[in-house]
Amino acid sequence: MEGASGSVAGTAKNGGAAGLTVALFDRRLERGLSEEQCLRVRGEYGSFRADICSAFGISSNETFVVCTTDRKEVTDANLSVLVQNGTTLYILTSADQLLSSATKEKIDFIPHYDTLVKSGMYEYYASEGQNPLPFALAELIDNSLSATANNPGMRNIQIRLLFDETHGKPAVAVIDNGKGMSPTQLKNWAIYRLSKFTRHVDALRDEGGYVRPPPVPRSLNSDISYFGVGGKQAVFFVGQSVRIITKTSNVQDVHEFILSKEDFEKKEKNRESIYSGFIRNRKQTDSSHILDDERYLHNLIFEEKGKSSFTAVIITGVQPVHMQYLKNFFHLWTKQLAHIYHYYIHGPKGNDLTVTKGNARPANKIDVEIFMYEKGKTLKIVNLREIMEDMQTLYINSAAESFEFKALVGGDGVVEGVMRYHPFLYDSETYPEDPYFSPSGEDFDLDDDCFIVERGARGKRPVFECFWNGRLIPYTTIEDFDWCALPKKRGLVPVECYNRISGVLFANDKFEVSTNKLTFLDLSLKLKDKNTLFTRIIKGQEQRMKIDKEFASWVKDCHTKYDKQIKYIGFVDSISRTDI
Amino acid sequence: MEGASGSVAGTAKNGGAAGLTVALFDRRLERGLSEEQCLRVRGEYGSFRADICSAFGISSNETFVVCTTDRKEVTDANLSVLVQNGTTLYILTSADQLLSSATKEKIDFIPHYDTLVKSGMYEYYASEGQNPLPFALAELIDNSLSATANNPGMRNIQIRLLFDETHGKPAVAVIDNGKGMSPTQLKNWAIYRLSKFTRHVDALRDEGGYVRPPPVPRSLNSDISYFGVGGKQAVFFVGQSVRIITKTSNVQDVHEFILSKEDFEKKEKNRESIYSGFIRNRKQTDSSHILDDERYLHNLIFEEKGKSSFTAVIITGVQPVHMQYLKNFFHLWTKQLAHIYHYYIHGPKGNDLTVTKGNARPANKIDVEIFMYEKGKTLKIVNLREIMEDMQTLYINSAAESFEFKALVGGDGVVEGVMRYHPFLYDSETYPEDPYFSPSGEDFDLDDDCFIVERGARGKRPVFECFWNGRLIPYTTIEDFDWCALPKKRGLVPVECYNRISGVLFANDKFEVSTNKLTFLDLSLKLKDKNTLFTRIIKGQEQRMKIDKEFASWVKDCHTKYDKQIKYIGFVDSISRTDI
Ligand SMILES: Nc1ncnc2c1ncn2[C@@H]1O[C@H](COP(=O)(O)OP(=O)(O)OP(=O)(O)O)[C@@H](O)[C@H]1O
Ligand SMILES: Nc1ncnc2c1ncn2[C@@H]1O[C@H](COP(=O)(O)OP(=O)(O)OP(=O)(O)O)[C@@H](O)[C@H]1O
Ligand SMILES: [Mg+2]
Ligand SMILES: [Mg+2]
Repeated sequence: MEGASGSVAGTAKNGGAAGLTVALFDRRLERGLSEEQCLRVRGEYGSFRADICSAFGISSNETFVVCTTDRKEVTDANLSVLVQNGTTLYILTSADQLLSSATKEKIDFIPHYDTLVKSGMYEYYASEGQNPLPFALAELIDNSLSATANNPGMRNIQIRLLFDETHGKPAVAVIDNGKGMSPTQLKNWAIYRLSKFTRHVDALRDEGGYVRPPPVPRSLNSDISYFGVGGKQAVFFVGQSVRIITKTSNVQDVHEFILSKEDFEKKEKNRESIYSGFIRNRKQTDSSHILDDERYLHNLIFEEKGKSSFTAVIITGVQPVHMQYLKNFFHLWTKQLAHIYHYYIHGPKGNDLTVTKGNARPANKIDVEIFMYEKGKTLKIVNLREIMEDMQTLYINSAAESFEFKALVGGDGVVEGVMRYHPFLYDSETYPEDPYFSPSGEDFDLDDDCFIVERGARGKRPVFECFWNGRLIPYTTIEDFDWCALPKKRGLVPVECYNRISGVLFANDKFEVSTNKLTFLDLSLKLKDKNTLFTRIIKGQEQRMKIDKEFASWVKDCHTKYDKQIKYIGFVDSISRTDI
Repeated sequence: MEGASGSVAGTAKNGGAAGLTVALFDRRLERGLSEEQCLRVRGEYGSFRADICSAFGISSNETFVVCTTDRKEVTDANLSVLVQNGTTLYILTSADQLLSSATKEKIDFIPHYDTLVKSGMYEYYASEGQNPLPFALAELIDNSLSATANNPGMRNIQIRLLFDETHGKPAVAVIDNGKGMSPTQLKNWAIYRLSKFTRHVDALRDEGGYVRPPPVPRSLNSDISYFGVGGKQAVFFVGQSVRIITKTSNVQDVHEFILSKEDFEKKEKNRESIYSGFIRNRKQTDSSHILDDERYLHNLIFEEKGKSSFTAVIITGVQPVHMQYLKNFFHLWTKQLAHIYHYYIHGPKGNDLTVTKGNARPANKIDVEIFMYEKGKTLKIVNLREIMEDMQTLYINSAAESFEFKALVGGDGVVEGVMRYHPFLYDSETYPEDPYFSPSGEDFDLDDDCFIVERGARGKRPVFECFWNGRLIPYTTIEDFDWCALPKKRGLVPVECYNRISGVLFANDKFEVSTNKLTFLDLSLKLKDKNTLFTRIIKGQEQRMKIDKEFASWVKDCHTKYDKQIKYIGFVDSISRTDI
């Protein structure tokens, strides 16, 4: 019997060149619990109906309707719209007939390609007037940090802004000399939410399970990949298409893969598999496939020569608004990147300018360099390590003294902390200004001094910036802890001394961050838990004394030793007059 | 020739019961640019190799190796691990031979199921000590609000916490009497990132393109679905499995669909299609398929009787930590939900207790009810409208007067705003306390009054809470605008009057929110843009006068009319004494 392919329990076989296959349930009233049958659909409704009659033994003069599970009746006019491969259909006496028994309708629900294409679009958000673009670029630097973690020599990460349109359409490239990816790993790159934790389960041929790196100071372990989404989010936040070019050291081939919004749209339109694509495997330096509008890639590919392993992530279709920002605010966003990676590029002690330059460099040197190519302009180059105006550099170098501590949360949660004292010197505070908060210079010139006291020095800023595995999580800040908060009763020092303290927290991977790496999920809650144990650290040694006492006396010492003039404040003033 | 299925340009055909199909590139040095051939793999390496020889015309004494694109040599021992259906292989003279010409390797990169299962896990985060769970529940309420938007009669949304384990395993159910879903729509529910904007492109049988609702006061348009991720994120944040039961009014069938973490894991293990599943279509009230551990569903399904349309989202595998929180902090999280939906449940003017109760109810009534079932305890029920301690109720009812305005941003961006004055009465501020900020009662008892002045009334809280399409976006707050900020020069009123103002902003859908609906992406930036036009609104009429003048005189009026005692503040005090 032509057309009928027999009963397939619960599934409609996919494919089949001779037409669509549908699953049919006979649910006319008198029929009982029969299973579905699969049927091939011939050209039009008439022959399909005839096939149904013979498959289900329905006499040709019996009245029945064929319906979708949405209860739309199939006719010759709508057959091609209502019936697709795998569609489930009912045979009923009428379209609104009750189902005599339940049916099982097979559905497919592969995530829409916006999962990738829009993954970053609503993730990076502006706060305090900041443009979130640097946070997207940071995801790509994160990946390069992870990839170069075990480099035997120097670690080089370059961001190249290819904005000279005489060399091809604008592109943003992030290139590193890390371990690269095999074709399997490159495929895994494209699999949304495939993380280092799930990867070994999924891909038999991959390098195996995840091994957590051993603890290091400030948790600078370069282990920043976590969710399997960062690269995709970042790329599609910045542009519309990405080309990855990569090579591992043990194989001579270079692997290339392109993911693009346009491609996805085309595949959807042509009803092709959305999540299928091609990796190009080729010889090193072979750029014969590159088209003219990306001709800058010839150079980039030529540079492969002699490189043992590398990865280049090249974003095209860059949003004009992002291009404008990258061009016009070069100074601002490079400074912000220098802030995010401060402790990676300067080492655990940060950018302490009082230490001789040569010694300050961390053993395993990380160069993060930005190159901006613009038409008719000279190439701009900056190594993030050269930037001296990032907030951490300012904090470190305006501090008179620091107070180190450690917090233990649960079994494995470790947070290292540093607080720094920025003294008052003669006629002004040395606390660095943060451009994202209204600078104290703009403050109120009221008679009423009270406001200046509160906003002076740190102002409304919280005390602590927070790092996760050594990387700044920009939107989580912590105001204070019980033991270092402004005391409720008059303390040992004037209240404004508490406004002269900045702080940094370094959390390890036992604390969770949101997928966009903008916020911690639970750092504040966990640290404020009553079971959290804080100890002061002096020269690497944990101190026995209670931390609140230690801290209070540290603040007092700082005040006595470093504040060079006691500042006049409102009420003290009025009291003294009363005494006259 | 058995096994060889001929050259298929660029694709390895899927399926085929008689064995795996692989794509082979002959890239031995002397060969040129030949395309790949597809070959069926017979049982073991020996016969596979023989098939290769005959397909590529290789004489049996020639030496060659078969490699994966990762350059692992295929042997009899590893064949079953290295070679899967669709794998691309090379024929080479040696495993490390250079590729004579590039190859195209077909890959599939369907998103990992963690896309769904972990979608919410790292999205809802704690801020200011808040538990983010209410924000996950809010996503389900959002969906029910959208679904009931066009209800002719009352709109009923119930959250049932089924925590009486004598009735089955714990579950959280969200049930509404909205329009329900057809099988196609139910399938679309499960498609991650399929939003109302992309849906009509994707599903020919769906109800068609998205129509933006007309503007309404406070943008209370119930149009809160946006990204196609909220429901999935919420469900898998709360638990491990979800069952959706739904019915539309035009069809008698009820449709059920289950999505579960365990299911995904099983499918992965068995190498079945990850994103395939079954919808159960059945008669109303038919619960014959329900197993004993979910026996509470018999009742729930029995309730279907007589309902024309509805949707029930039933989450099981509820995380113990969430169950504890829901039980122990019932009062807190219900209050928070009342806050999030304040203007939906009370109407555009909010919960003004001075207006007679009956009149205050919005025309299209929305009941959001919470039911908590616990073993051996009496059922707890609360209608969110009955809650009187949510922040908005407190703000509205402690306000002496309000100041309304409107902001126009670009062409379509509309923000309505209300500011409220909370006067000082005799010996205390009437500004309501927010439990998430340190209450002013805990303030410093220093001699030094300055701190109390700054922290009094509103304290460190920003002025504005922000709503999007009428729904609170909890983590975006706005400090102030130029025209309503504390003036830099002494103004018309004492500075502390500016701390007696609370505010609300209602943004329409031209402003973007993050996918977790916790933050606006750009509200603050856009409002602070110099082209943003603010006008005061009095009785629905836009006022011509400059808003900064209007505002300053409003504050002055409020101060004069409502503040019942001028509060003593530091400096004023000392000046008066000097005069004596
Ligand atoms: N520059 C690179 N060099 C080598 N491998 C890389 C590089 N960038 C990405 N990868 C690989 O691709 C995977 C996916 O990267 P992606 O940033 O999308 O997610 P992730 O880093 O795993 O997790 P997260 O969401 O935390 O960023 C990484 O885990 C890594 O294995
Ligand atoms: N209670 C419900 N009643 C009817 N339809 C619903 C209901 N809940 C969800 N849906 C349908 O399922 C779709 C997916 O819901 P989901 O919350 O996952 O995403 P969304 O609401 O479209 O977007 P967002 O990410 O903004 O929440 C909705 O667009 C809606 O069509
Ligand atoms: Mg990453
Ligand atoms: Mg939703």
